[in-house]
Amino acid sequence: MKVVGDLIGKEVVNTDAVLVGKVTNVEFDEETKEIEALILKKGGLSETLNISKSEDIVPYDMISKIGDKILLRDTFEFDF
Amino acid sequence: MKVVGDLIGKEVVNTDAVLVGKVTNVEFDEETKEIEALILKKGGLSETLNISKSEDIVPYDMISKIGDKILLRDTFEFDF
Repeated sequence: MKVVGDLIGKEVVNTDAVLVGKVTNVEFDEETKEIEALILKKGGLSETLNISKSEDIVPYDMISKIGDKILLRDTFEFDF
Repeated sequence: MKVVGDLIGKEVVNTDAVLVGKVTNVEFDEETKEIEALILKKGGLSETLNISKSEDIVPYDMISKIGDKILLRDTFEFDF
């Protein structure tokens, strides 16, 4: 059992060790009660320079492990 | 589709129109991805007087409707 509050603010890292972003919110389906996706604020250079306000959606199934960071599976690609 | 961030901070009201508390966090099961329960900070008098720091857990199935407030089903009883 985990709490969603532990996910929010956590950094998401892919298998290339790239910081994909930070979790800002979590999407769920009211009917099935299932968590569907993480909403990320993009990390990295675009955030530092404040040139991108856009968000990424990471399907929950793409998560490999939740710990101090959130690790993604290696099949997941972002369209940066 | 809803986001968990919309639940946090929302007031929970039962069918007796009693303010049960405010959502502080949301529990979920990592395996099934299902949201299991809301964690509430108790509202009402005990909070005002700061005599109670305890939390309530509301199973997600006990929610009747999520809107500006979160309404519970009438079968749910709290052990105040």
